[in-house]
Amino acid sequence: MDSRNIRLAVIPGDGIGVEVVAEGLKVLQAVGAKAETTTYDLGAKRYHATGEVLTDVVLDELRGYDAILLGAVGDPSVPPGILERDLLLKLRFRLDHYVNLRPVKLFPGVETPLGGARPEDIDMIVVREGTEGLYAGAGGVMRRDTPQEIATQESLNTAFGVERVVRYAFDKARNRPRRKLTLVHKTNVLTYAGDLWSRTFDRVGQEYPEVQTDYCHVDAASMFFVTQPERFDVIVTDNLFGDILTDIGAAVAGGIGLAASGNVNPDRTAPSMFEPVHGSAPDIAGQGKADPTATILSVAMLLDHLGLAEEAARVEQAVADDLLERQTGWTARTTHEIGDDIAARVAG
Amino acid sequence: MDSRNIRLAVIPGDGIGVEVVAEGLKVLQAVGAKAETTTYDLGAKRYHATGEVLTDVVLDELRGYDAILLGAVGDPSVPPGILERDLLLKLRFRLDHYVNLRPVKLFPGVETPLGGARPEDIDMIVVREGTEGLYAGAGGVMRRDTPQEIATQESLNTAFGVERVVRYAFDKARNRPRRKLTLVHKTNVLTYAGDLWSRTFDRVGQEYPEVQTDYCHVDAASMFFVTQPERFDVIVTDNLFGDILTDIGAAVAGGIGLAASGNVNPDRTAPSMFEPVHGSAPDIAGQGKADPTATILSVAMLLDHLGLAEEAARVEQAVADDLLERQTGWTARTTHEIGDDIAARVAG
Ligand SMILES: CC(C)[C@H](C(=O)O)[C@@H](O)C(=O)O
Ligand SMILES: CC(C)[C@H](C(=O)O)[C@@H](O)C(=O)O
Repeated sequence: MDSRNIRLAVIPGDGIGVEVVAEGLKVLQAVGAKAETTTYDLGAKRYHATGEVLTDVVLDELRGYDAILLGAVGDPSVPPGILERDLLLKLRFRLDHYVNLRPVKLFPGVETPLGGARPEDIDMIVVREGTEGLYAGAGGVMRRDTPQEIATQESLNTAFGVERVVRYAFDKARNRPRRKLTLVHKTNVLTYAGDLWSRTFDRVGQEYPEVQTDYCHVDAASMFFVTQPERFDVIVTDNLFGDILTDIGAAVAGGIGLAASGNVNPDRTAPSMFEPVHGSAPDIAGQGKADPTATILSVAMLLDHLGLAEEAARVEQAVADDLLERQTGWTARTTHEIGDDIAARVAG
Repeated sequence: MDSRNIRLAVIPGDGIGVEVVAEGLKVLQAVGAKAETTTYDLGAKRYHATGEVLTDVVLDELRGYDAILLGAVGDPSVPPGILERDLLLKLRFRLDHYVNLRPVKLFPGVETPLGGARPEDIDMIVVREGTEGLYAGAGGVMRRDTPQEIATQESLNTAFGVERVVRYAFDKARNRPRRKLTLVHKTNVLTYAGDLWSRTFDRVGQEYPEVQTDYCHVDAASMFFVTQPERFDVIVTDNLFGDILTDIGAAVAGGIGLAASGNVNPDRTAPSMFEPVHGSAPDIAGQGKADPTATILSVAMLLDHLGLAEEAARVEQAVADDLLERQTGWTARTTHEIGDDIAARVAG
């Protein structure tokens, strides 16, 4: 990639996805990143028009970009699960986004439901595995719709898949001031999968003596996100636990409107994809009510991933400044207005 | 059972389990419930002395009681998982405790980490399935300790198992003022298991037109426990999701020191078991620091289960009064002192 010219695939998706992505691109431009964007109309409309969700042809085309920016997919008119699985999860799996990177950070000035929490208490990164576990879609049903029905769902975990994400997490932890990494799992119940995760964590950890390690069951970790978020620095966990934990994280760090994420392929064998953690929120779509901040922070992660660290930092700083100002001179702003304000800060 | 004479098996277990159970029994006596108790020394000590955790002989003996009161099991000297699986989960499975009943209730006067929450906002019951799902222990490992290792973990769900717990939850919801029942799952990813749960929920729900139903993905529900707990009245969910949600519930409702639970066999083919949600907390064991409130509330659930509704209400009221007083005239009390105070209220 020419670091001055990002070839970016944009998937606005459905609902508020379209609105927030527009603001993300506005900020990308404001920061001076030269991007050549191509928009893909994947999502509910395309599904209804053609019956297609994500064809292999489109998927292959997407491989040609430096990165993907996604808004949100999902619409009540589409049977639940279809767009999630055949678009969102298919992208994550097929582009081998084995690291689902989700910072949980309370910016100064942001209101948190936790009465006593200060910004320095909530500053962690969840490294969620993105291509395995219960998300593999393995399972089956037998004797459907009879009293003898059985339905199974299988978590598939490989040494290959666990080791690479654990190693990524150790690398992340090593480069943070606290150098602490917590494995979250449920080893006392999920003994087979848990044992693979624990053994891998311990083994890889020996290569990182400078990183302080810790283990926490997912139920306790979920509690500590609320009662003692300061326990955590970097967390590594499986796909499903990461899904749950990062929503609790979003809740305590000021809400889903601020939670950014990266679906990262660290080996760069395919483009990484950046998206807000929130969904398409059809109930408020098209009304200018959506907060584009999560998408703008996802753009910062995208810039960072592409080596544009200075630009990334500027975007994050602009968001931080905007969030601080919301505290004092708060007036309700539209999606556009928030995007304009942050873009102005970035440019100025 | 002679409703005036409870045959009670007591398993204090390890660590603070021993201390909190003593207070639970004190309150049981104070409320005037005639109980014949037999103590079982199951747990770490027995394991070390005999290598046994829970033999079939003991298990059969336990079947003869009206109910079981358990403190907590687990000790650092025992490899993790052994006591949990071979004692705690074995009891739940073999005694067919298919309803794991966990109230999440913010008592007036209790401090919650959620700045803005009032007691009327946090008042729900989680009906967690107790005998299936990922807790079945199904799974395996192949090519252990090689780069080709695979570990699987399987969630087993049966129409039989799902229907009975869903039905129980509808019955519960029907008898509460709000009459609202929320199914929590992850149907968009766990499609096989999720589909069985959804279909069962919809089908059984038709028999309960007076109950308002709702569905929520587990990640969103975890967030809403923090941001909008008032959304929930009764929740029904699978074993693992219930485990996670009820720890978040404990966190928002004032901490794990107050969270009670019942492992209920509604068909009464075996005794039900009541226990605090917290663990054995070896770090504070033997110091009189443990809060016995969760155990005392579990005793209230036990009384209620045995048809002693009036006694149950008195215990709960005594706890509520004690909690209210903690707010104002707070002085640190020992485990014994808290037990004494609540027992005195119950008796008075
Ligand atoms: C939409 C859904 C499939 C997805 C997930 O479960 O990963 C979402 O909850 C997320 O966290 O990105
Ligand atoms: C100790 C453990 C096996 C248990 C569970 O996972 O059910 C505990 O967390 C609980 O919630 O009772």
